[in-house]
Amino acid sequence: MVLVAPRNPLNIGAAARAMANFGCARLRVVNPYEVAFREARSAVGAAPLLASAREFSTVAEAVADCALVVGTTSVGHRELQHALRRLESGARLIRLAAGPVALLFGSEKFGLSNEDMGHCHWLMRIPTVDLNRSMNLGQAVAVCLYELARDSRAAAARPPRPVKAARAADTEQITAMLVEALEHSGYIKPLTAASAKTKVRRLVRRLNLTARDAPVVLGMLRQILWKLGGTQDA
Amino acid sequence: MVLVAPRNPLNIGAAARAMANFGCARLRVVNPYEVAFREARSAVGAAPLLASAREFSTVAEAVADCALVVGTTSVGHRELQHALRRLESGARLIRLAAGPVALLFGSEKFGLSNEDMGHCHWLMRIPTVDLNRSMNLGQAVAVCLYELARDSRAAAARPPRPVKAARAADTEQITAMLVEALEHSGYIKPLTAASAKTKVRRLVRRLNLTARDAPVVLGMLRQILWKLGGTQDA
Repeated sequence: MVLVAPRNPLNIGAAARAMANFGCARLRVVNPYEVAFREARSAVGAAPLLASAREFSTVAEAVADCALVVGTTSVGHRELQHALRRLESGARLIRLAAGPVALLFGSEKFGLSNEDMGHCHWLMRIPTVDLNRSMNLGQAVAVCLYELARDSRAAAARPPRPVKAARAADTEQITAMLVEALEHSGYIKPLTAASAKTKVRRLVRRLNLTARDAPVVLGMLRQILWKLGGTQDA
Repeated sequence: MVLVAPRNPLNIGAAARAMANFGCARLRVVNPYEVAFREARSAVGAAPLLASAREFSTVAEAVADCALVVGTTSVGHRELQHALRRLESGARLIRLAAGPVALLFGSEKFGLSNEDMGHCHWLMRIPTVDLNRSMNLGQAVAVCLYELARDSRAAAARPPRPVKAARAADTEQITAMLVEALEHSGYIKPLTAASAKTKVRRLVRRLNLTARDAPVVLGMLRQILWKLGGTQDA
């Protein structure tokens, strides 16, 4: 991970935090704004890898031992001389790289310069919407590292259920009415009412009621509450 | 997108920015720390969707019109009563949901409470490393929205090249020697030397030299430079 000319200590700290989150250990900074780098390092809760971050004065030195150098950009394809890949496919190539990979992020304000990009084999962009391409530095780092860490097999884990689910307003009303019925019937004791309500709410959510079933259950509960003598306008 | 009890204006702003980046329009906040919410709204460059963010005093009201309510957490499975899915598979279910989906994020310090989780159908976690599970709020929002926006077909776009690539230090030395040779031979004029060097650097990167070819090319250039009478210790 190479940050080129970062200026905001919060962003440097955020980049380091994302690296810790996704198990990426080596941070290099090129020409950082000195005050920012010092502040980021001394911040409360700073990631330990900030302390071991190495400083370089040129991009060439920072990436010298890497076999693949990838730059990040929010600029569209037409303005660039480099091959530009979407993060999804770029990450796949990075994972397959034979040797250490440098991932370059430019400054918050200007991104990577043409000079910086000259050191890159290709460029990568996060698939943002066209109207809002520019991402916060710390967030861009987090998204890139997540894509590199994600497990595509995990995505296919479970088959979907196509049934239309009940609205939360209905499940919450069912929760409230069921709690009321349980209080009236003495199942819920006043002392433990709060935790009981939370348990009932979870139970009702686990039922995965369909949009079709919710009004039926509501009708049943309304009838039960009427019989118990409670108010049913929950 | 529902932020529950956020406290830091920078995080609220960062969440809104990520939403703008990934084309997510509706932000709801439950019980925000008032000063933070006001500050986030009035920040320079605040996303327009912050202005239209709606405030609620309870989670139940904030998610009332949603058919699926998903909570986010960094806590491990054993401590939870809910089903916990990795982001990769959770995002797949969210994309297939029949109706509006609420994605809940807890406060920076405590995450979602048990009471908040009670409103969720299931929970989702970002696949961070076990030692550093807790993510910055704005970065967690960005990563979740990216996963929802990403195109799995884009990942399979290009076949990989298994050949071992040359180290950046070698390609940079080739660039420097080639530039020197071109200067000696009059191909590069002193006036345009800087931009010419950038062009040459790009050209050399595009060659995608292999680790095996790099020393060969270096040897050729060294010989040419010797003949041209230049110094070859670039």
